Amino acid sequence: MVRRGANQPSVGGYNQAVVLDQIRRADGLSRVELAETTGLSAQTVSNICARLLDAGIIEEAGRAAAAAGPGKPRTTLRLVGTSRYAVGVHLDPSVLTFVLLGIDGAVVDSRTRPTPSANDPARTVRLIVTEIDGLLDTSGVDRARVVGVGIAAPGPIDAERGVVVDPPNLAGWHRVPLRDAIAQGTGFPVVLDKDVTAAAVAERWHERAPGGASFAFLYLGIGLGVGLVLGEDVVRGGSGNAGEIGHIPVDPDGPPCACGSRGCVAVSCTPAALVAEAEALGLLPATHVDDDARSIDEALTRLVVRAADGDAGTLALLERTAERIARALAVVCNLLDVDRVIIGGPMWHRLAPWLEADIPQLLASLLVARGLHHVAVAGTGLGDDVGAIGAACLVLDAALAPQPRSLLLG
Amino acid sequence: MVRRGANQPSVGGYNQAVVLDQIRRADGLSRVELAETTGLSAQTVSNICARLLDAGIIEEAGRAAAAAGPGKPRTTLRLVGTSRYAVGVHLDPSVLTFVLLGIDGAVVDSRTRPTPSANDPARTVRLIVTEIDGLLDTSGVDRARVVGVGIAAPGPIDAERGVVVDPPNLAGWHRVPLRDAIAQGTGFPVVLDKDVTAAAVAERWHERAPGGASFAFLYLGIGLGVGLVLGEDVVRGGSGNAGEIGHIPVDPDGPPCACGSRGCVAVSCTPAALVAEAEALGLLPATHVDDDARSIDEALTRLVVRAADGDAGTLALLERTAERIARALAVVCNLLDVDRVIIGGPMWHRLAPWLEADIPQLLASLLVARGLHHVAVAGTGLGDDVGAIGAACLVLDAALAPQPRSLLLG
Ligand SMILES: [Zn+2]
Ligand SMILES: [Zn+2]
Repeated sequence: MVRRGANQPSVGGYNQAVVLDQIRRADGLSRVELAETTGLSAQTVSNICARLLDAGIIEEAGRAAAAAGPGKPRTTLRLVGTSRYAVGVHLDPSVLTFVLLGIDGAVVDSRTRPTPSANDPARTVRLIVTEIDGLLDTSGVDRARVVGVGIAAPGPIDAERGVVVDPPNLAGWHRVPLRDAIAQGTGFPVVLDKDVTAAAVAERWHERAPGGASFAFLYLGIGLGVGLVLGEDVVRGGSGNAGEIGHIPVDPDGPPCACGSRGCVAVSCTPAALVAEAEALGLLPATHVDDDARSIDEALTRLVVRAADGDAGTLALLERTAERIARALAVVCNLLDVDRVIIGGPMWHRLAPWLEADIPQLLASLLVARGLHHVAVAGTGLGDDVGAIGAACLVLDAALAPQPRSLLLG
Repeated sequence: MVRRGANQPSVGGYNQAVVLDQIRRADGLSRVELAETTGLSAQTVSNICARLLDAGIIEEAGRAAAAAGPGKPRTTLRLVGTSRYAVGVHLDPSVLTFVLLGIDGAVVDSRTRPTPSANDPARTVRLIVTEIDGLLDTSGVDRARVVGVGIAAPGPIDAERGVVVDPPNLAGWHRVPLRDAIAQGTGFPVVLDKDVTAAAVAERWHERAPGGASFAFLYLGIGLGVGLVLGEDVVRGGSGNAGEIGHIPVDPDGPPCACGSRGCVAVSCTPAALVAEAEALGLLPATHVDDDARSIDEALTRLVVRAADGDAGTLALLERTAERIARALAVVCNLLDVDRVIIGGPMWHRLAPWLEADIPQLLASLLVARGLHHVAVAGTGLGDDVGAIGAACLVLDAALAPQPRSLLLG
């Protein structure tokens, strides 16, 4: 029987999504294997596959002998990666990332652009529309095969209305209806989600066999946040704003925070906080970096250059940063007892050389269930584009995964 | 089709559990209504009901006219509350609570006993076995109708092995195989879970229509923790140890903590911390309360008596406590964006008069998504026995809810 939830899909649509999801993850399956793994009848599987073959979404990829014992060879069904596409856009306060993703999850094309000044959301919207257009032109894909556009944006968001609500690092953005603006500009269906959630969705989408291990995705951008997958479910929260970690205190000797506490993530782990601390210590020239995301981004690059040069003060600062991040992760891991931590986001690859060795052991020492439960820590395998890839996966999820409505076949 | 998970129940067992769950929550349903709400065929519903009637678990409770329009009256099916029972035991470092729960979730009988000294787990095990025996004797229920015993214990636990692993407030307990010890002593099947998880399960079990709102249950005992229900799922974590909040810093000026931070929940919100602070301020005589849970419990009672007398210093201390608890809750709510916070546990009803007005507004002011998402805060409606009730619900859950194996009908 069907699992009952708030948004119950039709059984037919649900079953089709399950079949597609299985084919995608297994990188090819026979009808017999599909019936076995999904629990659907051979007839149902056969009908669904006929529909998907007809639509060009899957293909018969060859005949393989049955794995064990005799029997007639089975036809393997594969996803046609070029049959459908999704565009993913990641709006970080310092950089815009665009990817074109095939239905098989492969990145077909990608580009980045500096984010326009925070005080001009309309300009950013225009740029996003133009760049999506450019991306599709350059890649030469048939626009009729583009299922939609996904946008990963900093929170808080009004998930229901597709609105970006006063993100702390985009000063000029007050309730910007980003989803509808991009839909109007591009003509595509658009889904909007938080950047941290999109990153977690990207990881989950690219797993071979999801549903087992739970994880927290630590997102390091101009802001810091956490995307959560517990068991089979992406945790979005009641208003789509799960993942806020900015006011977890991580340094008892840190600077005061607007929340009334001291040494919160927001004032001691963000790139802005790192750069401010480096300036105060004389590690960077005091250029009075303000709230401008791009200048903070550039200053951070100068800081890691100093670290690469072996500067002791900079290395000590990054060591303290590793401990602060580990303390934030410890709060998350102690609360949720996740199996894995994945780290990524626009700042990660620059900081990784100085953080990735320290964080796992610091974290392990802070876990209440240490000795009972090992928490694996690793950088994302999806690179800096993980947020944009996740944004595109949101669209493919709506098309492929068990969801109320399918963007894919109407 | 069946939702696929790690422990896939048989379709038959799953469907039966769904039917029972619906009957229980609705406090009576007709076969037609059951088919409508579960999506099962009339024939399947009819077969399941025949089996359950036969086993005496449900009964035909009368004929009601159909709600709308003409048609023949429908027979209402009800759970027989006295057909099956579960025992719940809550092991708090200061008090042992025992409840006998009918299959309809009603408390048939209950009792409390002071927890023996922490340094003698064997004595505690003997006492638990004796008291379960006494509870069943007194209540006079047929032992053949007792489905099993649930135990709610302080974490960390080794969930798989049913072992209590070094809980910070039970000094003499090192890897105590509590589940098997109680099973051996009583002859009943036993399930073991964390106290905070049991409390959350109790809340979820007693909801009319679960699956919608997510919540965090703040458990105030000798230790503090959080039980989590997100959507349809109780969050237990990879090792069954979710819900640890002891090292969330909540007071930047608080005492140092073993974790290297300052003002963590464990050193500034626990009854022991409250009593220690009261003694340091001269609000309580400095009786050198040590780690003994019972003397801390008694000192806390003296403290709330002072508050009831209107003592300014004590009231200020409780005000600070409300703020610290609100800060811990803010971390949980910002991370998970839950819809509700429920507060309970052995300390709650004593502290509630001084905390329940302040916590909701302090919490609201600390939420990143305030204005987008209202978080309701309320004390549990299940009273001080919520942990023990939850422990019994764990057993009934295994019997009633969609689970791999049914304790109920073999
Ligand atoms: Zn703060
Ligand atoms: Zn601590």
